[in-house]
Amino acid sequence: MAERVSDIGELGLIHRIGSLLERDGCRSPQVSIGIGDDAASFLPRAGCELLITCDSMVENRHFLPAFIESFDRGRRAMTSNISDIGAMGGTPLYGLVSLGLPADALVLDIEALYRGFLHELNPFHASIVGGNLTRSGDGMFIDITLVGEVAQGKAVRRSGARPGDAVLVTGFPGRAAAGLQLLLQAARDGRSAGHPLVDAYKTPSHRARAGIALAATGYATAMTDTSDGFPGDLGHLCEASGVGAEIVRERIPCDGAIRAAAAALGRDPYAFILGESDDYELIITCDPRRVQSLQSVSSACAVPLTEVGKITAEQGMHVVLPDGRKVPLGAAGFDHFRP
Amino acid sequence: MAERVSDIGELGLIHRIGSLLERDGCRSPQVSIGIGDDAASFLPRAGCELLITCDSMVENRHFLPAFIESFDRGRRAMTSNISDIGAMGGTPLYGLVSLGLPADALVLDIEALYRGFLHELNPFHASIVGGNLTRSGDGMFIDITLVGEVAQGKAVRRSGARPGDAVLVTGFPGRAAAGLQLLLQAARDGRSAGHPLVDAYKTPSHRARAGIALAATGYATAMTDTSDGFPGDLGHLCEASGVGAEIVRERIPCDGAIRAAAAALGRDPYAFILGESDDYELIITCDPRRVQSLQSVSSACAVPLTEVGKITAEQGMHVVLPDGRKVPLGAAGFDHFRP
Repeated sequence: MAERVSDIGELGLIHRIGSLLERDGCRSPQVSIGIGDDAASFLPRAGCELLITCDSMVENRHFLPAFIESFDRGRRAMTSNISDIGAMGGTPLYGLVSLGLPADALVLDIEALYRGFLHELNPFHASIVGGNLTRSGDGMFIDITLVGEVAQGKAVRRSGARPGDAVLVTGFPGRAAAGLQLLLQAARDGRSAGHPLVDAYKTPSHRARAGIALAATGYATAMTDTSDGFPGDLGHLCEASGVGAEIVRERIPCDGAIRAAAAALGRDPYAFILGESDDYELIITCDPRRVQSLQSVSSACAVPLTEVGKITAEQGMHVVLPDGRKVPLGAAGFDHFRP
Repeated sequence: MAERVSDIGELGLIHRIGSLLERDGCRSPQVSIGIGDDAASFLPRAGCELLITCDSMVENRHFLPAFIESFDRGRRAMTSNISDIGAMGGTPLYGLVSLGLPADALVLDIEALYRGFLHELNPFHASIVGGNLTRSGDGMFIDITLVGEVAQGKAVRRSGARPGDAVLVTGFPGRAAAGLQLLLQAARDGRSAGHPLVDAYKTPSHRARAGIALAATGYATAMTDTSDGFPGDLGHLCEASGVGAEIVRERIPCDGAIRAAAAALGRDPYAFILGESDDYELIITCDPRRVQSLQSVSSACAVPLTEVGKITAEQGMHVVLPDGRKVPLGAAGFDHFRP
């Protein structure tokens, strides 16, 4: 019979996770005390600021266990945190993982979850240095805190966009939203859903490598990731900067896969692109004269970076349609509490 | 009608919490970016190691909402994290708070929760620099990450205890366990439960001030807090150090309140003292010649520090009873998953 968390208990699970991390995880010479004490301890590097972020994923709210298996859940949860550090221009260093688990959770699933975390952390030689296990009511929650570093004074905020700045976006926003709809459609039809867009939903890519390189140029005036969807996070950036934005709809990158999926689902592709989507792309603003420099830096990271509009002094966001009409763009970012 | 989280939405709640923190919280000149960006940013102080810990509280598991109101819940959750930093000899600096909330949570309660966090952080001039809000399934979870600092090389681990070392403990372990039983008894009898031991359960005190002072002496060979109960955490310390311990039962401080509560409840006071109890006292080991020095340092922090036994080369824990018999002491620390 498959082993459950209740069979091995909290200490048993801690030991199991500890050996997995020792075997498959990275170690940092800066960490003097890791898992297994009251707190972890590390020596910060001189000349660096530290970045710290946390993000939770709750079962049935941020992931549907029937659709996303444990390894992918782990990748996805860690990716959202790496994306936050990368969106400041920072490099991930140390993670702490707090899990709320039902007592009947399978030990194998928890181990797969940690392998998912490491899959995303190892390329940065980042490590898991602590955490907490507790029993949850119904369903699992995963809360990750991630520490990163950035050269002193080089962190890029949301609040630096200025009127006249160009607005750029990496990759193809909306892929995850289209993938989720394909997944739900396939489930309704009783089919399995192997599709690049479905993968974009299950295991989205962060753009931290590009974020680090773009921040290092010193040309980005503001940067944020699109974890609340392109318009939601553009809205946060505009609000923090006290500006507005005008986006030219036809300039927003719309890849063939999104067009094909939209056609198959009978939807407008811009419902995905300009809606809520768990993509973890980056929105960047800069002086228009710096656009080409930033594009070549991003291109060196194999990440497309497209100019899609400009920052306006007038607050509020607008989209310019192909016929020249200018329509308001709602910052309809995802709200966890509104009905 | 009392405002609910669903009435003001996620962004509304973030703004509400933001103004509360601005009004009632501390600000650090080391923090360059706080709440409202992808990540917070701070400059570490030269010559210091950073400590980081996280701890969760789950409704109906770690607190019964009928018994512990929001302000006290906030104090309690933050205290457990401050205790972890203090048990390494560190000073709390920055907190991140991740909340899982049902949509019908009252805004007033969330604000009270944050006032509870600040009540514990403000004495250290520590601040909340980030966090996350999400909707939870049933009931609330509170997950706090706390960053602290300690002079380089001065962090006290669990793993340094040596055979022959004295074992010391602060305060009066077991008070919280006795308080919880009084609270449950009063609830069964339909009475309200105002009692110092009930307060010890609802809003336990951490010993971080004493922990910082004791670590600074350099005399403590190992230190940990008693969040899993005295025998549970003594067990963790012994395991990490590869040693055992012999505790003299009559030396363990047992205050009059615990004796009186035990008599009223028809229980053995040592069931509280040597059982699971959410007290956040400190267990410290040191060379027997350093006991008096540590006691005067602790006394200067107004914290009693009592020598209760010694570390043994032979593994396993034992209690010496008044009649001279030596009985095994189970490390029956709290296990979240065992039935």
